[in-house]
Amino acid sequence: MGESLLEGEDHPAIVVNGDGKSPYVLICEHASNHVPRKLAHLGLGPEDLGRHIAWDIGAAAVAEQLSRLMDAALVRQRYSRLVYDCNRPPEATDAMPEVSEIFTIPGNRNLSPANRLARITEIYRPFQRAIDDLLDRRAAQGKPVILVSIHSFTPVYKGKERKVELGILHDRDMRLSTLLIKSFPNINAQLNEPYGPKDGVLHLLNLHAAPRGLMHAMIEIRNDLITSERGQMEWAQRLSVPLIQAAAKTPGG
Amino acid sequence: MGESLLEGEDHPAIVVNGDGKSPYVLICEHASNHVPRKLAHLGLGPEDLGRHIAWDIGAAAVAEQLSRLMDAALVRQRYSRLVYDCNRPPEATDAMPEVSEIFTIPGNRNLSPANRLARITEIYRPFQRAIDDLLDRRAAQGKPVILVSIHSFTPVYKGKERKVELGILHDRDMRLSTLLIKSFPNINAQLNEPYGPKDGVLHLLNLHAAPRGLMHAMIEIRNDLITSERGQMEWAQRLSVPLIQAAAKTPGG
Repeated sequence: MGESLLEGEDHPAIVVNGDGKSPYVLICEHASNHVPRKLAHLGLGPEDLGRHIAWDIGAAAVAEQLSRLMDAALVRQRYSRLVYDCNRPPEATDAMPEVSEIFTIPGNRNLSPANRLARITEIYRPFQRAIDDLLDRRAAQGKPVILVSIHSFTPVYKGKERKVELGILHDRDMRLSTLLIKSFPNINAQLNEPYGPKDGVLHLLNLHAAPRGLMHAMIEIRNDLITSERGQMEWAQRLSVPLIQAAAKTPGG
Repeated sequence: MGESLLEGEDHPAIVVNGDGKSPYVLICEHASNHVPRKLAHLGLGPEDLGRHIAWDIGAAAVAEQLSRLMDAALVRQRYSRLVYDCNRPPEATDAMPEVSEIFTIPGNRNLSPANRLARITEIYRPFQRAIDDLLDRRAAQGKPVILVSIHSFTPVYKGKERKVELGILHDRDMRLSTLLIKSFPNINAQLNEPYGPKDGVLHLLNLHAAPRGLMHAMIEIRNDLITSERGQMEWAQRLSVPLIQAAAKTPGG
């Protein structure tokens, strides 16, 4: 494997509706299970690459629908999080995991510094830069931004069933999460479940939203609820109403 | 003024000793009072451009000495913070201030979105990218990093005298600050003085160190103590000993 990982392949960030009128900018770091050709499926079969370890099942479709419903910009990742998890810093061992949940990832074993650097500079960094570019442009124009990342989680993790249906995750800045959590009376919705900041999952928001002072939240939907197109549309609609209401309550939103 | 601000001028980041063996990576955002030619001194005379509003007097020299004493990498900014304050996000009104302390900055009045974007994309962003590149490379190699930014402050601010000589600034992560503050028995050293996170001055560390989980601190020296070469060398030596001791106490340091 040479250092040029994506030779002949596409940029890792897909920017949808970049000039959307909504203050919301949506991010979907785990949108895809695609592996660059040079990495030969990371040594995994199609079954493993279909699992939640490779991507957030249904999340991209919900994010696309939300982007359409709210006229919001969306930045989604083109490659599998097993290649590089764009919600982890380069220092994290689970940025290029050798083991994910209970599955070993052959193509991530014994990566050399050059291998690691190629994934950082060709996947992680250009993805973050695409977000920077979008947010910088909005800042220069004085347009407000609220950053929301859309994820899904597996109903069974390490053999344990998860009852929670919707997680609203926050780290230090709870402004948006506190507004949102009250808006799902008939759903099992929890703050910082099924995991939270201690698990390192707030990286993307701590990288982009916190240093800019932007309101933000991470949304996690249990993936059995959004496997069908119908479920995806239902959840996009369900999320869009409280999001729009929350924006209306904030200065410039 | 066109959109290409730095035509024929140098990259805003000056990387010194990038492969230094120390875990410390030093940053000096306010190293210089140089203004790109196209901005015509921002309408200021040489006297105003010599003041603390344009740069952190003495900070670059202390940072250079520290880099040499510790064999540490240093990234310093080439342009005045009045052009773009690289310790502020693009969203902050004081990133390109119309007024700094009690001085109005004619060249920062009524900036258009295109003017603002040019400063963001040609000054702020390439500077932050140079830091990203350095830290990404170290992460790929598994080398530990401790991030320290070096600043100075004016002894008199808005007419009020400041007694503090050394400020050790932190936001949420106090690990390094707590170690350092005990190491200056004969100095008026204070945590989060003469200002702190509420003033928005932790931006650079919240952008680079916090999302990566790196130990970090911001060091502020009262600038009357480091106007001479002798004072600069004295303070670099005084700082280097506790910094090296603190690194020795941390994993991988």
